[in-house]
Amino acid sequence: MKKISLLGATGSIGLQTIDILEQHPEAFQLVAFSSGRNMDVTRSILTKLTPELVSVISAEDAQTLQAEFPHVTFTYGNEGLVEVATHPASTVLVNAVLGSVGLESTLAAIRMGKTIAIANKETLVTAGHLVMAEAKKYNAPILPVDSEHSALFQSMNGENTKRIERLILTASGGSFRDKTRDELVGVTVKDALNHPNWSMGAKITIDSATMMNKGLEVIEAHVLFDMPYDKVDVLLHRESIIHSMVEYSDTSVMAQLGSPDMRVPIQYALSYPDRLPIQHAQRLNLAQIGQLHFEEVNFERYKALQLAYDAGRAGGTMLTAMNAANEAAVALFLNEQITFLQIEELIERVMHTHNNVQLPDLATILAVDSETRKIVQGMVK
Amino acid sequence: MKKISLLGATGSIGLQTIDILEQHPEAFQLVAFSSGRNMDVTRSILTKLTPELVSVISAEDAQTLQAEFPHVTFTYGNEGLVEVATHPASTVLVNAVLGSVGLESTLAAIRMGKTIAIANKETLVTAGHLVMAEAKKYNAPILPVDSEHSALFQSMNGENTKRIERLILTASGGSFRDKTRDELVGVTVKDALNHPNWSMGAKITIDSATMMNKGLEVIEAHVLFDMPYDKVDVLLHRESIIHSMVEYSDTSVMAQLGSPDMRVPIQYALSYPDRLPIQHAQRLNLAQIGQLHFEEVNFERYKALQLAYDAGRAGGTMLTAMNAANEAAVALFLNEQITFLQIEELIERVMHTHNNVQLPDLATILAVDSETRKIVQGMVK
Repeated sequence: MKKISLLGATGSIGLQTIDILEQHPEAFQLVAFSSGRNMDVTRSILTKLTPELVSVISAEDAQTLQAEFPHVTFTYGNEGLVEVATHPASTVLVNAVLGSVGLESTLAAIRMGKTIAIANKETLVTAGHLVMAEAKKYNAPILPVDSEHSALFQSMNGENTKRIERLILTASGGSFRDKTRDELVGVTVKDALNHPNWSMGAKITIDSATMMNKGLEVIEAHVLFDMPYDKVDVLLHRESIIHSMVEYSDTSVMAQLGSPDMRVPIQYALSYPDRLPIQHAQRLNLAQIGQLHFEEVNFERYKALQLAYDAGRAGGTMLTAMNAANEAAVALFLNEQITFLQIEELIERVMHTHNNVQLPDLATILAVDSETRKIVQGMVK
Repeated sequence: MKKISLLGATGSIGLQTIDILEQHPEAFQLVAFSSGRNMDVTRSILTKLTPELVSVISAEDAQTLQAEFPHVTFTYGNEGLVEVATHPASTVLVNAVLGSVGLESTLAAIRMGKTIAIANKETLVTAGHLVMAEAKKYNAPILPVDSEHSALFQSMNGENTKRIERLILTASGGSFRDKTRDELVGVTVKDALNHPNWSMGAKITIDSATMMNKGLEVIEAHVLFDMPYDKVDVLLHRESIIHSMVEYSDTSVMAQLGSPDMRVPIQYALSYPDRLPIQHAQRLNLAQIGQLHFEEVNFERYKALQLAYDAGRAGGTMLTAMNAANEAAVALFLNEQITFLQIEELIERVMHTHNNVQLPDLATILAVDSETRKIVQGMVK
């Protein structure tokens, strides 16, 4: 029985994690979770599973729920996130919050030697050097939840990782993959949110359309698997059936395939090194799919991906600046304050003027993060 | 340093094994090998590598070579094969002979606890129950060399094999994959030997065109991985890039991909669980390939594959009868004594009248084998 803490239970990944936990009461027990503003969803989780501790956003919400669920302890805010992450009963932390809010609590859990199932790209992108150093120091395994990194991780199972020649991240190309750069000028938020293969949160869907999502994944792969950027490639594969691949020194390529379903990588991180069945998961039928397509990435078409490689190679606070600029720009786009192509433009402008600091500590990272968001706001005033 | 015995050094798989051994003198040493009738190739191996023992077909050839290579011991015939297989210095036996001649010597090596790298399908098809029982008893690992079974084996590395839902063997469809059954009536030996993806020996190329090769692989997979026939599927995949796949209980499908090159699975069996580079091996470039195709198998079109499943499910000496009938029929076709479609017809007739004996011993298997060949000869007189 694995005891689980879950950060971000009411988000897209969080709810799918809840589904997995519900399906396997014999294997997993949810001991603590944090939720967002949706109180109905929080209540629904509380009626299905029996956590000891729940953290919400405000003191008010905590009070309200406390009255309804007297046997559960409620807490709130940033401190609440840390309490959930460091709950003494849990051995596994699933970090499924969006953005950089999960960073502090994840580091706290790492220092307790917990296994971290990480769905939060930003934690690894902005503070990868801190996270991996602490993980090594405290013997805390960091397991990927992202479908691509899970595929890479599954393709390394049992292998001598010294023999890896190349990581190949597949990319669907996002909602605008059939548009040229010129055709991106007039696209709307609604168009952008219509992803061909995956049903995900709004921010990730936009990142998928710009391919910044793939860029963050490239950086995440570099950090998680300690691979130089020259050995992390991106391959366009519109069907999202091969979730990613690892090439070895004997030219063998190991791959993980499946119907797009985030519950598979989520569960793998929880059940690893074993596997468990998943109810209502669709078995892969390649004969029915018929064809898989592959294409090289055009870095001029997907400029955000190039910016991510550039930031990755630069390292230091450039990663935080790039990530914060992207988060701020995507929020502005979703709020219809800027156009789609301005997302890349703002990121590039931020990166161009950023004064890079190598090996930043947590305070520096958080300062650059908040400063960058202000800079981006200032750019559109 | 792994010390290797090699049965069938001058055949297609044997020569590629020699290539691998030559490339890695730091990892592998050839201590004994058997060769066929080609004395020039045998001489060439003897000048490149330094085995202690070599077995040839005839006493005459042994004498000739002994005079030329006085520091090597030469032997010959069936006993020679056993001597090579059981050479006391080797820990690994590569069985790369064709047909059922490798059976006795392989069993002898298994009883010495050697690791068996098996490229000889017939040994597992006709005597799978004996081979696997002895392998278990004497703790002799049986590692596949076939590209498909190597792909399955690689896709199981590090996994809990209890979670396997299905083995998916990919099939190119062979030289006649674009022909209907009606169009197979007039095909020639030359047409049949023109395989689209793999350069192999004549017998295997014909087996690939009838898909009996895939049928033998289905049986081999059943035997090697202890999987029921209902969980061993065949999928048409014309590019032969995905070499085979394993589906797990969480719907994940693990696959091994690569450019078609038999040296990769041969070397994997030798280097397992590690990997080594291979000189002049082509790295996979999926963007260049562009598309991979998948299609369900039509068992009426590929009747030999259906016959193999039938024989597999029947078990016992039916497997030997089916295999011997196929070997005899393919020889007749290559000799232009029967048409392409008569291959299946003869196998079916043999299977229809065969008096099946379950769990046959080696003597019974050998008797059924030789008797079946006579029956097939009799059918075309």
